[in-house]
Amino acid sequence: MGVSLGELAVRFGCELRGDPDVRVDHVATLAHADSRSLAFVANPRYRQQLAATAAAAVVLDAASAAGCATAALVCRNPHATYARIAEVLHPLPSASPGVHPSAVIAAGARIDPSAHVGALSVVGEGAVIGPRAVVGPQCLVEEGATLAEDVRLTARVTVCRGVEIGARTTVQPGAVIGGDGFGFAQDGGRWIKVPQTGTVRVGPDVEIGANTTIDRGAIEDTVIEEGVKLDNLIMIAHNVRVGAHSALAACVGVSGSTAIGRRCMIGGQVGIGGHLTIADDVIITGCTMVSHSIPRPGVYSGGIPLEEAHVWRRLVARFKRLDSLVTRLKALERPASGGSDQEVTDD
Amino acid sequence: MGVSLGELAVRFGCELRGDPDVRVDHVATLAHADSRSLAFVANPRYRQQLAATAAAAVVLDAASAAGCATAALVCRNPHATYARIAEVLHPLPSASPGVHPSAVIAAGARIDPSAHVGALSVVGEGAVIGPRAVVGPQCLVEEGATLAEDVRLTARVTVCRGVEIGARTTVQPGAVIGGDGFGFAQDGGRWIKVPQTGTVRVGPDVEIGANTTIDRGAIEDTVIEEGVKLDNLIMIAHNVRVGAHSALAACVGVSGSTAIGRRCMIGGQVGIGGHLTIADDVIITGCTMVSHSIPRPGVYSGGIPLEEAHVWRRLVARFKRLDSLVTRLKALERPASGGSDQEVTDD
Amino acid sequence: MGVSLGELAVRFGCELRGDPDVRVDHVATLAHADSRSLAFVANPRYRQQLAATAAAAVVLDAASAAGCATAALVCRNPHATYARIAEVLHPLPSASPGVHPSAVIAAGARIDPSAHVGALSVVGEGAVIGPRAVVGPQCLVEEGATLAEDVRLTARVTVCRGVEIGARTTVQPGAVIGGDGFGFAQDGGRWIKVPQTGTVRVGPDVEIGANTTIDRGAIEDTVIEEGVKLDNLIMIAHNVRVGAHSALAACVGVSGSTAIGRRCMIGGQVGIGGHLTIADDVIITGCTMVSHSIPRPGVYSGGIPLEEAHVWRRLVARFKRLDSLVTRLKALERPASGGSDQEVTDD
Repeated sequence: MGVSLGELAVRFGCELRGDPDVRVDHVATLAHADSRSLAFVANPRYRQQLAATAAAAVVLDAASAAGCATAALVCRNPHATYARIAEVLHPLPSASPGVHPSAVIAAGARIDPSAHVGALSVVGEGAVIGPRAVVGPQCLVEEGATLAEDVRLTARVTVCRGVEIGARTTVQPGAVIGGDGFGFAQDGGRWIKVPQTGTVRVGPDVEIGANTTIDRGAIEDTVIEEGVKLDNLIMIAHNVRVGAHSALAACVGVSGSTAIGRRCMIGGQVGIGGHLTIADDVIITGCTMVSHSIPRPGVYSGGIPLEEAHVWRRLVARFKRLDSLVTRLKALERPASGGSDQEVTDD
Repeated sequence: MGVSLGELAVRFGCELRGDPDVRVDHVATLAHADSRSLAFVANPRYRQQLAATAAAAVVLDAASAAGCATAALVCRNPHATYARIAEVLHPLPSASPGVHPSAVIAAGARIDPSAHVGALSVVGEGAVIGPRAVVGPQCLVEEGATLAEDVRLTARVTVCRGVEIGARTTVQPGAVIGGDGFGFAQDGGRWIKVPQTGTVRVGPDVEIGANTTIDRGAIEDTVIEEGVKLDNLIMIAHNVRVGAHSALAACVGVSGSTAIGRRCMIGGQVGIGGHLTIADDVIITGCTMVSHSIPRPGVYSGGIPLEEAHVWRRLVARFKRLDSLVTRLKALERPASGGSDQEVTDD
Repeated sequence: MGVSLGELAVRFGCELRGDPDVRVDHVATLAHADSRSLAFVANPRYRQQLAATAAAAVVLDAASAAGCATAALVCRNPHATYARIAEVLHPLPSASPGVHPSAVIAAGARIDPSAHVGALSVVGEGAVIGPRAVVGPQCLVEEGATLAEDVRLTARVTVCRGVEIGARTTVQPGAVIGGDGFGFAQDGGRWIKVPQTGTVRVGPDVEIGANTTIDRGAIEDTVIEEGVKLDNLIMIAHNVRVGAHSALAACVGVSGSTAIGRRCMIGGQVGIGGHLTIADDVIITGCTMVSHSIPRPGVYSGGIPLEEAHVWRRLVARFKRLDSLVTRLKALERPASGGSDQEVTDD
């Protein structure tokens, strides 16, 4: 059946340029759309595709609307509006209230009647599953953990004992929230495990990616504030705090006790040392090593783009001899100048 | 019992130098072999061990055969021939057809009678498990996902809704195929989730390593072409395409919408940015940051080998003052030359 | 109820400065302690908080004791002593002997009567679960795997066929021990899988972090020696050996056949190449690329700290033109000197 453009325009506050009775039933890219598709343009470089798209309608801003050969839903933030419409056209699979008979539920667990617990999940003693929360198949919610309303553990998520998950937070498969932090004391050449007595508190509206791990605090808690978005395969160590609305791309590692500010954006594979403080509104590009605190907002980088291997080897060799370069330069700078032979050690 | 060398020579097209009735029943390294062992030499640097090995026979090429003190199975590609023989000597544990009684199978799932579904696995509505496919214990095959013939999900693999897995593909434990891509639109300081409406299509003869994650596409699909080999803990973001027969080592991260060519080899911990195109036959050495497209085949690098910490700190300090170095050089290059004092800011 | 300071002093060999009848029942940081809290000071920079802490008692060394306003448990190694006391105050949740009725146990598995097997776990044919071992919920112990006494698989751990886990070793959720190594032979543009016939042997007193993967050996075994501590999301490839009491921080990748010595400390996101040998007592700081063997103990580094993006871009541009810099320097060093114009290609 789909939804009419008129209804979408009213519901999402768009200006409709086109026939309000046309209906769309799925999203598509401009290039692969058909007469039932809704597409969008958020990035100006895709504007050129507007003339040829077969989409029924396109969500875009006023600046892009001129070149659109089909119906247009004009709004100020096409990406966000597209996201909201796509959720209507492609709703999440519904999960009926109730507990699957194969799930193992401790006697003292409290599961809201409107919540769903999927096949072969385990819910421990004293755990609380809030209203409309969805615990997908094969999840583990250990003793004393709490899921607020509308939490969605997609599947095979591990929520360890005592961990708190805020409302509407979504966790992708394989994520582990509340494993022990990496705390060991040295004692005569051996490591003694330091009990990790804190927990993890995850705020509302957070997203946690597949196979990401968030360790419980050593004494106090690890904290993920509201609206934070964590991609896949991220490591959040014990006692880290990630500030509200920050987004971390995949494979980022954050070492223990570091505090990341609000609204930060951290690129993929960034490594952040321990006991650091990153200010609000910091952007760090991918593959950067963060070994000291960042007290001011701004954009920070630390990765060197690749070269063909033979060029790169030569650059690395030069880099490794920077000391010699400086020595030669100093020799040239001497009043008499010219460079003494014995300092010319570089080719 | 084992297999006779004569049989192996015939079956795998080797020239046998030695007694065809000798039997081998397991593989071993040259150094730790015994009279029932089959060993191999693919790398010339191990040739020196041929004189002393206690192996019953060695798979090797003609160039290595001269120094072999025991029976030799001579062939052109010893590594590949060894691999095929090892599969005969060490067959995978067999999995009997049928569904384990503890598995939870949706009414509308279609499971081929020759397929195996292990203990405590979950197969969702409309999922298809093909002929001779093996779904190990504790796997999850969500609604609408399809496994072609001879697919092997070793154990605890997550295949999300609608994902397609090609024939003979093997997936190691903990892998997550089809989690949501990391797509969010900014809206007034908050992130709005963009529904990820695509899926993942994995070709035939692919291998996916332990705890690797492959996200579903945002609108169109994420694609892993035939014969691709992915090691452990790899992140493949939404809408990535990995070309046929490419191999990615562990801990690689590939950002969204990037296309990797065919027959590429990507070293461990390489980080690849988004919306890039990597040509066919590209080799990238480990720990390299890829921040722009690579239009031509070749070998590319970007990592700098370590130094003792005190040496490294000095190099980094030099690097951070490269600007000053250039300034000083320019001063020396001026016609009058000699370097003006006020520009000598470096030690 | 808690424990009296007198009892703690006797049991852990501390000198008590304060009232032996005071009782503590939980640990806390100096800043957030109350009258029932035990705190500790291992790092001198926290000494300043000793004057104001509300803790009932503090574990510290003699050098710190002077400034302590509350009761003190004085010892030589406060971190290790704290760890041991914390284990008394915060014991692990107990696991009662026996097998949960929802677990799936093969007929030929041998489970010690004192061991615990949790809900929805699977134990394969011929597997051995030792005395007092704890197999948490949703774990998989495949055929022929053995867990020695007091092993603790916290939850959702995968122990593949034939893997051996030593006494008292703890494994965090999501870890995969014994997945296939990444071994493929090239054959006419395709990859042939090389059967991975070795296994993984994990020593006693090891800790393995969440979602860490340790691959089985290609022919011989992958070995993790006693007392090794592995953080989360670490990749240990086939045939690696990690020496006793070494500690690896999160996101480290170790390529195949590399041997790491004893008592090494490897920082987060370090990437270690294959077929290397790292000596005993080597420390490698975070984000370092290790591309050659390290024959001597010491501290090694390879990461470059970040800069603001515009500064960094300039440094990278300088780095990429190091060759030109050297050329210009050589021109200046020529006897006649002064630098020929055509070589001044840099700005």
